[in-house]
Amino acid sequence: MRAVTFQSPGQVAIEDVPEPELQRPDDAIVQVTASGVCGSDLHIYHGRVPVERGFTIGHEFVGTVLAAGPEVERVAVGERVVGCFHTACGTCVACVRGDYHRCVNGRTFGHGSKLGDLQGSQAERVLVPRANLTLRPVPEEMSDEVALFAGDVLGTGYHAIAHAGLRSGDTAAVIGLGPVGLCAVQAARAAGATQVFAIDTVPERLQMASRFGAQALHLTEGDPKRAIRAATSGLGVDVAVDAVGDPEPLALAISLARDAGVVSGIGAYAGRGEVPLGLAWLKGVTLRLGLANVIAHVDRVLAMTSAGLLDPAPIVSTHMALQDAAQAYAMYDRREALKIVLTP
Amino acid sequence: MRAVTFQSPGQVAIEDVPEPELQRPDDAIVQVTASGVCGSDLHIYHGRVPVERGFTIGHEFVGTVLAAGPEVERVAVGERVVGCFHTACGTCVACVRGDYHRCVNGRTFGHGSKLGDLQGSQAERVLVPRANLTLRPVPEEMSDEVALFAGDVLGTGYHAIAHAGLRSGDTAAVIGLGPVGLCAVQAARAAGATQVFAIDTVPERLQMASRFGAQALHLTEGDPKRAIRAATSGLGVDVAVDAVGDPEPLALAISLARDAGVVSGIGAYAGRGEVPLGLAWLKGVTLRLGLANVIAHVDRVLAMTSAGLLDPAPIVSTHMALQDAAQAYAMYDRREALKIVLTP
Amino acid sequence: MRAVTFQSPGQVAIEDVPEPELQRPDDAIVQVTASGVCGSDLHIYHGRVPVERGFTIGHEFVGTVLAAGPEVERVAVGERVVGCFHTACGTCVACVRGDYHRCVNGRTFGHGSKLGDLQGSQAERVLVPRANLTLRPVPEEMSDEVALFAGDVLGTGYHAIAHAGLRSGDTAAVIGLGPVGLCAVQAARAAGATQVFAIDTVPERLQMASRFGAQALHLTEGDPKRAIRAATSGLGVDVAVDAVGDPEPLALAISLARDAGVVSGIGAYAGRGEVPLGLAWLKGVTLRLGLANVIAHVDRVLAMTSAGLLDPAPIVSTHMALQDAAQAYAMYDRREALKIVLTP
Amino acid sequence: MRAVTFQSPGQVAIEDVPEPELQRPDDAIVQVTASGVCGSDLHIYHGRVPVERGFTIGHEFVGTVLAAGPEVERVAVGERVVGCFHTACGTCVACVRGDYHRCVNGRTFGHGSKLGDLQGSQAERVLVPRANLTLRPVPEEMSDEVALFAGDVLGTGYHAIAHAGLRSGDTAAVIGLGPVGLCAVQAARAAGATQVFAIDTVPERLQMASRFGAQALHLTEGDPKRAIRAATSGLGVDVAVDAVGDPEPLALAISLARDAGVVSGIGAYAGRGEVPLGLAWLKGVTLRLGLANVIAHVDRVLAMTSAGLLDPAPIVSTHMALQDAAQAYAMYDRREALKIVLTP
Repeated sequence: MRAVTFQSPGQVAIEDVPEPELQRPDDAIVQVTASGVCGSDLHIYHGRVPVERGFTIGHEFVGTVLAAGPEVERVAVGERVVGCFHTACGTCVACVRGDYHRCVNGRTFGHGSKLGDLQGSQAERVLVPRANLTLRPVPEEMSDEVALFAGDVLGTGYHAIAHAGLRSGDTAAVIGLGPVGLCAVQAARAAGATQVFAIDTVPERLQMASRFGAQALHLTEGDPKRAIRAATSGLGVDVAVDAVGDPEPLALAISLARDAGVVSGIGAYAGRGEVPLGLAWLKGVTLRLGLANVIAHVDRVLAMTSAGLLDPAPIVSTHMALQDAAQAYAMYDRREALKIVLTP
Repeated sequence: MRAVTFQSPGQVAIEDVPEPELQRPDDAIVQVTASGVCGSDLHIYHGRVPVERGFTIGHEFVGTVLAAGPEVERVAVGERVVGCFHTACGTCVACVRGDYHRCVNGRTFGHGSKLGDLQGSQAERVLVPRANLTLRPVPEEMSDEVALFAGDVLGTGYHAIAHAGLRSGDTAAVIGLGPVGLCAVQAARAAGATQVFAIDTVPERLQMASRFGAQALHLTEGDPKRAIRAATSGLGVDVAVDAVGDPEPLALAISLARDAGVVSGIGAYAGRGEVPLGLAWLKGVTLRLGLANVIAHVDRVLAMTSAGLLDPAPIVSTHMALQDAAQAYAMYDRREALKIVLTP
Repeated sequence: MRAVTFQSPGQVAIEDVPEPELQRPDDAIVQVTASGVCGSDLHIYHGRVPVERGFTIGHEFVGTVLAAGPEVERVAVGERVVGCFHTACGTCVACVRGDYHRCVNGRTFGHGSKLGDLQGSQAERVLVPRANLTLRPVPEEMSDEVALFAGDVLGTGYHAIAHAGLRSGDTAAVIGLGPVGLCAVQAARAAGATQVFAIDTVPERLQMASRFGAQALHLTEGDPKRAIRAATSGLGVDVAVDAVGDPEPLALAISLARDAGVVSGIGAYAGRGEVPLGLAWLKGVTLRLGLANVIAHVDRVLAMTSAGLLDPAPIVSTHMALQDAAQAYAMYDRREALKIVLTP
Repeated sequence: MRAVTFQSPGQVAIEDVPEPELQRPDDAIVQVTASGVCGSDLHIYHGRVPVERGFTIGHEFVGTVLAAGPEVERVAVGERVVGCFHTACGTCVACVRGDYHRCVNGRTFGHGSKLGDLQGSQAERVLVPRANLTLRPVPEEMSDEVALFAGDVLGTGYHAIAHAGLRSGDTAAVIGLGPVGLCAVQAARAAGATQVFAIDTVPERLQMASRFGAQALHLTEGDPKRAIRAATSGLGVDVAVDAVGDPEPLALAISLARDAGVVSGIGAYAGRGEVPLGLAWLKGVTLRLGLANVIAHVDRVLAMTSAGLLDPAPIVSTHMALQDAAQAYAMYDRREALKIVLTP
């Protein structure tokens, strides 16, 4: 079958790869009808996350169940499903605690041998282990490209807000308005945030955040910190999200949070970084770092999307064919697209 | 000054009562501009809650600060304010835990000597002890009658949902669509509930709930339990609210809740009542009973109202002059009004 | 093989039953080395919980893994293990929320076809479905009969306290000092309760509770309510546990809880019962009902037992051979034993 | 009266200072019977925390109420009391949320004009504003020097554990075994931690931690990280406390925490510091930074101390007279004392 494979930094290819086969009793095989290109795919594309040459990449997908092992109970052959971006065993010490994102046996789609050796979803078909936890049926009226978000980007935006414990009536700020940040804006509004401040430098993204109910603040042309202080009686926000994953926006998030507030660091940090520890300590801030526990959230996220409380459709900027993946990656890398959906 | 006083069961009167005077350094006196008649006032009216003859009743109010003791810091003379329905000391063992509604020194407005001997707010002016906790400034653009709700009915609806721990993406049911139930419907929607089922027998109330985003279900003409099962994949709702305060709606709420769900009993129960303990135990339900911790919620509730996430305005059915209080109580008792606002 | 089977109310028998066989890939078969007789077995014995004639009963067990399907990963053949009293799938909507005790596919050992049709553990060998969640390795130095408690009685005592949210520095009361109540006393002390009041009518049980660090209060010979008020500055306890499962002790628990406190109803309630709703509402009490989420707790409970923070050994009053089960049930029914351990 | 005043970096003096006088209705004046020298006093001593020359320092105290304003209700003249290290108003937005440590109007004893301009407690008498929240009666049988800890060091150790959400059955590590770290060890054990790893370089402190139930690990002579991995099945601890307040121990705490675990940074961080953000993100760690919410904990801490669950007595290494304060500071600065109690 045809699949997008990593070749070398800056290069992906469409190749013929072996068909997936059921291996364990709770495996499923999904015929992919839509697959997303995600910010974390760029880490692979740039070689920052090492992946074997020829490994199929991609970790967002919607499709139809083609085959399922005898232990697959939550989805049926023929059913349209969305996949979470990683698998979880459901029985290890982390899963029993509900920390599916830290599953001891977890495998991430399309991230090479180091993250579970699981071929990716930018392909015609994909093997889905632990299908009872990894897959969810897609509500009938929901489009493929909308459902696609539930298993990754929208689940991550939801996590940024929910894991921070935002309560209705709270205020929030989101730094970085890529797809995840925009989804966090939506999630905050849907959870009853009275004010959501959205910070970026790209006018189109600020406009979209504004359309999603946020107060858009340009990072460098204005003074977001001052504006937020003014709008919150000088207190700062209850929840500040860094959706970028760098020390600088994290420091900004700490400065925007109110005393005893929460900072949600949902972007992918790497290495060491300088943090204003003195300020964070003085304020008594809680920092919640880490990737999203998407499996724990996916039912709620689908329900909210189905109810119209979340709507990622406007975030999809570009539709392309799977075979044009090389072009898609190059375009995404040049930031010429906000979100690309590939159709096999 | 003129005030509404309790006389005997079924009888209230407008009488001349002594002017309130500052007694302690954190007292304030508020010139009342709007006062509500509430369901709990009917308990007094019917003699179920015993109040001394000649005691001023009423516990919902908005007005302007006329005078304030030297320790009053959170509101200023001349400021428009909303009052919470009771006071809290802020320093007892309950208050330090944040349970302001169970303050050891708490006093309820207009409920006679047994509940703190604090004259009520259906009057031209009202003495407000512990003004730093009892009062909050009203946002400029908010009308008196909308602000009025924050300190009692809307705070209670918010509590029913928040204290139950509803998370965005959850489902809820509300039994009893008086003002509190309707506010609970709004609070659930605002907090991101994907489905809110609203149950009552009065068509107008069902219509209003529907207008607030709920799925209205007639208690006796349909089969709400069946309808909710069908709409929730047979699971039941995450949060079921009994806004009536009787064993029967409580039993219904228990039957509507999902396994390990939460039942919020916000109505005023009295005496003993039969509860389906076996069913509640089998389901592993949590029952959260008690009146609302309004002081803990009032800032959030005002912010949500200001942001348009909550809007009690449609609940106000009737405006009357304070001097027509006797007529107002009789009307409210005949259920000819959903919510009456009195203007001195 | 030999097993204890239900015959008719008041009658159990040792019978030859078919050997268990692996059926699904995550099944295990355990050679039982110790099995407990539990209070819930008496419900079966009395016919209150209907079980088919000839069905093997018992749901507490420790033993050695004899055989395991290919998907069993958390325990190995030859390993000594303790079983939880029920199974959970780990992937249904309840399990994903962490509510393993409400698993949609859950099966309870030894409770007949209505509760999952799973043969019991008072037998030489037992089939254990979902072994990754149902079984845990027993620490080397721990005796069989101590480990036995982790999967049921001690897990339930732990749940009564943990699910109630008891924090170190809190106070607690436990009504009913059977094995579960006594374990709740231990769990409360281990979690840092400063005072634990233990209430019963049986002197030996009161003495044992006292030995476990509780203040023993005779239910009828003294005035436990008055004593607890006096010992808690008139406030009542933070957490009150009803370990009996009847309306009367539940009402007592409500009266013992402090304002805004928690009542944990861990005993098995049946049918409808009269509850002092007015008092519970006035106090703003939270009632947490339902059986224990043992699978969620078992790792912690084993660790605490291993560390000596919990020690159920003194609760075992009687050791008998499996073949004397009829005598054991009769004795237990006459309350001549606190806890019986059967050895095949 | 006599008081310890800051003079210049490295120099404190005993001076005659004006007698405190009641200023507001909820003020009290306490005749100090014991006052502690604390690690944060050294920040002042070294000039890192700027305090005016001649300002009375010290923020830990036990004594007897000499005078009280008319609004003081929770303590009485003549009563023995312990003070919290700072005051809180009880009515600001932070206090209403329960964040007393971030009170908008909060004042810290003995920290100069920048932190509330409140003279310290290393004096014969001390003015105590907001006495209803700042003071608590000391149980009769408790010594002054033990009670002293509740309002600062022990409350901070408790906070490190409680704010991290440690549950009974969890594991913990504490880095830095000064008084706060040693109290955190005790608090973890009292809350039911099965294993507490205590890390430092000073043999006496390691021994004391060991005496308090911890597994002592030398920071540099052994390999604490490896030892903890081995003792926790390779997982790491549920809660890791940095009681030092520097980037290096914080990084160690992050490396010791299990996946999705909590790191409690209770030491006083200053400025910016390098943090292993990549590792923290990969693990999905929550960092809870900030000083302790002592007012929220003091009742529980006193109850636990009274019940013998916490016992700071062994931490007191040195008793000195108030007039020898200069010598005491010099000694403490040379690390020749673990905890010094001054008696006026």
